[in-house]
Amino acid sequence: MKETYKANKLDVDVIVKKIKFVLPQERTSIGLHEPIFEGNEWNYVKECLDTRWVSSVGKYVDLFEEKLAEFTGVKRAIAMVNGTSALHICLKLVGIEQNDEVLIPALTFIATANAVSYCGAIPHFVDSEMNTLGVDGTKLRQYLQQIAEVRKDQCYNKKTGRRIKAVVPMHTFGHCVDLDALVAVCEEFKIELVEDAAESMGSYYKGKHTGNWGKVSAVSFNGNKVITTGGGGAILTNDVELGKMAKHLTTQAKMPHKWEFKHDMIGYNYRMPNINAALGCAQLEQLPQFLEKKRNLALRYQKAFQDVEGITFLVEPKFSRSNYWLNAILLKPEYAEMRDEILIATHENGILTRPVWDIMYTLPMFADCPKMDCKIAESISARLINIPSSVNL
Amino acid sequence: MKETYKANKLDVDVIVKKIKFVLPQERTSIGLHEPIFEGNEWNYVKECLDTRWVSSVGKYVDLFEEKLAEFTGVKRAIAMVNGTSALHICLKLVGIEQNDEVLIPALTFIATANAVSYCGAIPHFVDSEMNTLGVDGTKLRQYLQQIAEVRKDQCYNKKTGRRIKAVVPMHTFGHCVDLDALVAVCEEFKIELVEDAAESMGSYYKGKHTGNWGKVSAVSFNGNKVITTGGGGAILTNDVELGKMAKHLTTQAKMPHKWEFKHDMIGYNYRMPNINAALGCAQLEQLPQFLEKKRNLALRYQKAFQDVEGITFLVEPKFSRSNYWLNAILLKPEYAEMRDEILIATHENGILTRPVWDIMYTLPMFADCPKMDCKIAESISARLINIPSSVNL
Repeated sequence: MKETYKANKLDVDVIVKKIKFVLPQERTSIGLHEPIFEGNEWNYVKECLDTRWVSSVGKYVDLFEEKLAEFTGVKRAIAMVNGTSALHICLKLVGIEQNDEVLIPALTFIATANAVSYCGAIPHFVDSEMNTLGVDGTKLRQYLQQIAEVRKDQCYNKKTGRRIKAVVPMHTFGHCVDLDALVAVCEEFKIELVEDAAESMGSYYKGKHTGNWGKVSAVSFNGNKVITTGGGGAILTNDVELGKMAKHLTTQAKMPHKWEFKHDMIGYNYRMPNINAALGCAQLEQLPQFLEKKRNLALRYQKAFQDVEGITFLVEPKFSRSNYWLNAILLKPEYAEMRDEILIATHENGILTRPVWDIMYTLPMFADCPKMDCKIAESISARLINIPSSVNL
Repeated sequence: MKETYKANKLDVDVIVKKIKFVLPQERTSIGLHEPIFEGNEWNYVKECLDTRWVSSVGKYVDLFEEKLAEFTGVKRAIAMVNGTSALHICLKLVGIEQNDEVLIPALTFIATANAVSYCGAIPHFVDSEMNTLGVDGTKLRQYLQQIAEVRKDQCYNKKTGRRIKAVVPMHTFGHCVDLDALVAVCEEFKIELVEDAAESMGSYYKGKHTGNWGKVSAVSFNGNKVITTGGGGAILTNDVELGKMAKHLTTQAKMPHKWEFKHDMIGYNYRMPNINAALGCAQLEQLPQFLEKKRNLALRYQKAFQDVEGITFLVEPKFSRSNYWLNAILLKPEYAEMRDEILIATHENGILTRPVWDIMYTLPMFADCPKMDCKIAESISARLINIPSSVNL
């Protein structure tokens, strides 16, 4: 009887117990990803107030950009008001124009698709790899061989006639996509690479920090990320000229002058305020410890779930040293319909869990966008559950 | 000899002395508009850090919105990441579409024009009134009678064929434009009114706070404003449904649910973080005293400049109780070419001054936009100088 039961239904109580076993026993309510401020946050923020440098110019903005470039190993980091705005400017910087198509994962947070829309461009959805949850380079290459052609060093969609200008892989929950495969696709099809590294601060692909492969890359410091600035993001790039242009574009394209108000293009007000950067500087100092704790938590989850029938705890791909931003369990396909039951049971037990995002083309505003067959992304979306992942667990 | 000299040239030393006379004698360097934090700023910000509510959801965001609505007398205030984003969403909310024309002052900060561009719409520049520095309702009415026609309750530009959908007056330096005149123009020509109240927190038109006339209005809490949140802004509206839509649009258009990620339109990440709202709550408590001090400073400037030949200190229009955000002096037209000499002399004396913005259509990206004759705006732009205006002077 027991065996039959197991084949049809997961034991929800066991899953709740496994998660509880890993988490601090004394807490009755545990969030999905809560920030911690145990370093110099107070000191730096208070200094902003005492010196009255709270706004878009200030030493912490400069320091945060410098330290961020140092940590990630890029030549230039530009602090931004959030990750979405960073992605918007990244797309502008690689030359996305109205009616261009931009290849993005079907399985991603809405910001990736929205940023494409802000440029008047069209998201073109591509499938994920089960191993990374992110864009599958091999499948993308095969797809482009069918639907695209390169003319005068530009890639065109043979069906729509529109230019395919860029691909924006996203490192889901901090697990790196296979960047080498994507770099090869980009070279073959003359497509720009922009990394959506919103979730991958502290994640390394083959030993080098994410954000080093894209011509430009976007990171996020939203309140739920590995480190936070309240709200915030950044652009990373190894192209110093593009870095300068990013700063210019995000400060209303104002030309430097003591008092003159001359602007030479349509710009944006996307600067990170100094008070938020102060928070960022303090958080960045603690990032190495945060990563160690997060990787340790992931290891504990991995052990706890290793003997649970029907469930896989997601571990980093072999080429990725992941930040394990959000830990995730994947139900076997035959148990997919039990996802919501598990979400409800965990919530009832004070444990915040969530499903992954809806597939982008199931949302009304993206329903008519071009897409490849995305059966892996659809499968993941139906049966993945994120479980508590804060640094202090 | 003295008389001839005076007719040709202003005495720059006298101007510097007059400004210095008003300002604190002991200080060797005085900024244009510096924030002060002498209230509950640290308490509230510290509480955010201690409770770890720093990001886009939190009690200070709610409280700031509530107190802001209360102070300005609108039904709904929505906190935003900055004034530019507030203006962008205001334009979306009144239905600005691609290729619409939006009437905006030729004399304004670049954000007004950029926000129009973000919608794919075209700025259409209109002249200022000398009395308010802002949009001249009478002249606008005469102009629209010539170039526009109303068909099926929509206004069209007869020359370009494009719809003229809205007018966005800006309350320059906190001096109210004549809103009644503009409301009449909007009714006559079926145009939406959006107030760019970025500079007018604490300014009242005929006894009521600015932001109450526009269908929606945008304010700014940038570091140089009367009160600041580091970076920040807000949308004000008396239309509760539009207020709800503003909140929805600025939170990535995510539909409320415990865990589901469903979004029903292209949204934006324009929320103000809680840590910035905490600063705003503390600043808002002090706004009445700030306004008193600023009006007092303006009075001292007014007295100091009353006997200076060739210079007018700008005072509030009769229907405006102004916040005197930035104090300004206007050189007589015959002395306009001495503007830079005065800017240089004041800077050399440690007094930060600045000219007003360049006329929008002199910037390359707006050079081809439609415009009326803007001789008053051009004249103001050539001979206005802003002088130090911080609360603590």
